[in-house]
Amino acid sequence: MALLEQLKWRAAIKQFDSTKKLTPQQLDELLAAVQLSPSSAGLQPYRIMVVEDAETRVKLREAAYGQAQITDASQLIIFAAETTVDEILVKKYIDLIAEIRHVDRKQLDSFEQSIMGAVNAKTPEERVIWAQKQAYIALGVLSAAAADLKIDTCSMEGFSPAAFDEILGLKEKGLTATVIAAVGFRSDDDVYSKTLKVRKPDAELFIRV
Amino acid sequence: MALLEQLKWRAAIKQFDSTKKLTPQQLDELLAAVQLSPSSAGLQPYRIMVVEDAETRVKLREAAYGQAQITDASQLIIFAAETTVDEILVKKYIDLIAEIRHVDRKQLDSFEQSIMGAVNAKTPEERVIWAQKQAYIALGVLSAAAADLKIDTCSMEGFSPAAFDEILGLKEKGLTATVIAAVGFRSDDDVYSKTLKVRKPDAELFIRV
Repeated sequence: MALLEQLKWRAAIKQFDSTKKLTPQQLDELLAAVQLSPSSAGLQPYRIMVVEDAETRVKLREAAYGQAQITDASQLIIFAAETTVDEILVKKYIDLIAEIRHVDRKQLDSFEQSIMGAVNAKTPEERVIWAQKQAYIALGVLSAAAADLKIDTCSMEGFSPAAFDEILGLKEKGLTATVIAAVGFRSDDDVYSKTLKVRKPDAELFIRV
Repeated sequence: MALLEQLKWRAAIKQFDSTKKLTPQQLDELLAAVQLSPSSAGLQPYRIMVVEDAETRVKLREAAYGQAQITDASQLIIFAAETTVDEILVKKYIDLIAEIRHVDRKQLDSFEQSIMGAVNAKTPEERVIWAQKQAYIALGVLSAAAADLKIDTCSMEGFSPAAFDEILGLKEKGLTATVIAAVGFRSDDDVYSKTLKVRKPDAELFIRV
């Protein structure tokens, strides 16, 4: 598959070429792919911020150990998990299913109850972690889709979620910054993309039963 | 991109055609893609089980609310996170980098220390959650890569991790079952793949800054 070759080409880019930007079509395609990410029960308990504003990015960079990717990449993508996963959020999702599939809302009652059962089995803290895990799936899809489009990425956990939430006003939106990815194009000076990729060998990674 | 079309085709398959199996080449390509998944610092703090054994799958199905995908799919993939993320695990990874890149182990000391700093900042429980999040990235890559290969998947959280760990002997291996995915080919009778896909509309999912 072509994607496999692109995943070999992919690397966590530290130095982006700040003069190279995604075309609007590239950005649209990338976001459309991320929108199609699977999530538990299809709930997508997160929002995805696309940050282009230079001033905001300077502030975010300060809250991320000064990492240059934050300001130099074409866009910064922030996966922000929902901090309140409750019956309101689930109800909204079930309403959306009814609307898109033109089905009677009542037919979806048992599905709604099964999701609420799973939600209620978790503490509020566990629900946030669960929402964050779903965001990580979306990050995986972003990584693959970007590689497929020959767009570079650098996913990052090295930032202060509290500072990001503050700068972006996420707390008021019921969200928390979970993981981020810079997207754009590598600079010729990027070092790590020229070194050999390190992955666990088959025998260390896979267990066959 | 071709991948975007394949992501539209993708659906969480409930009913697999149990007579259709991945070819060895398809399985190899799929696993090679998952092996290339990004992870924090490149640590890959998980192992990936590929379960084909019928008897084991019957037991796993019982521990997963009887879901038919477990036994009917071509393979069951289990993402198992490391339960002990410590200096031994990090040291092994640094050794691997030195070996693959033919660099002096000493040159990697500061990188090793930076990873250990991040690890030590977390409680043992937080480290497991962190390892699990990395496994979710790999699940995202699996979903995209499988779709690219026209292979069906159903990712699932609806199982008892404790029962899976017991059946698969994961605890002794220092692992815990985190999330699973059935891979194979949809049955003509599968219902959900014929319904419209439900995703948050752009205005509900994306925030542009």
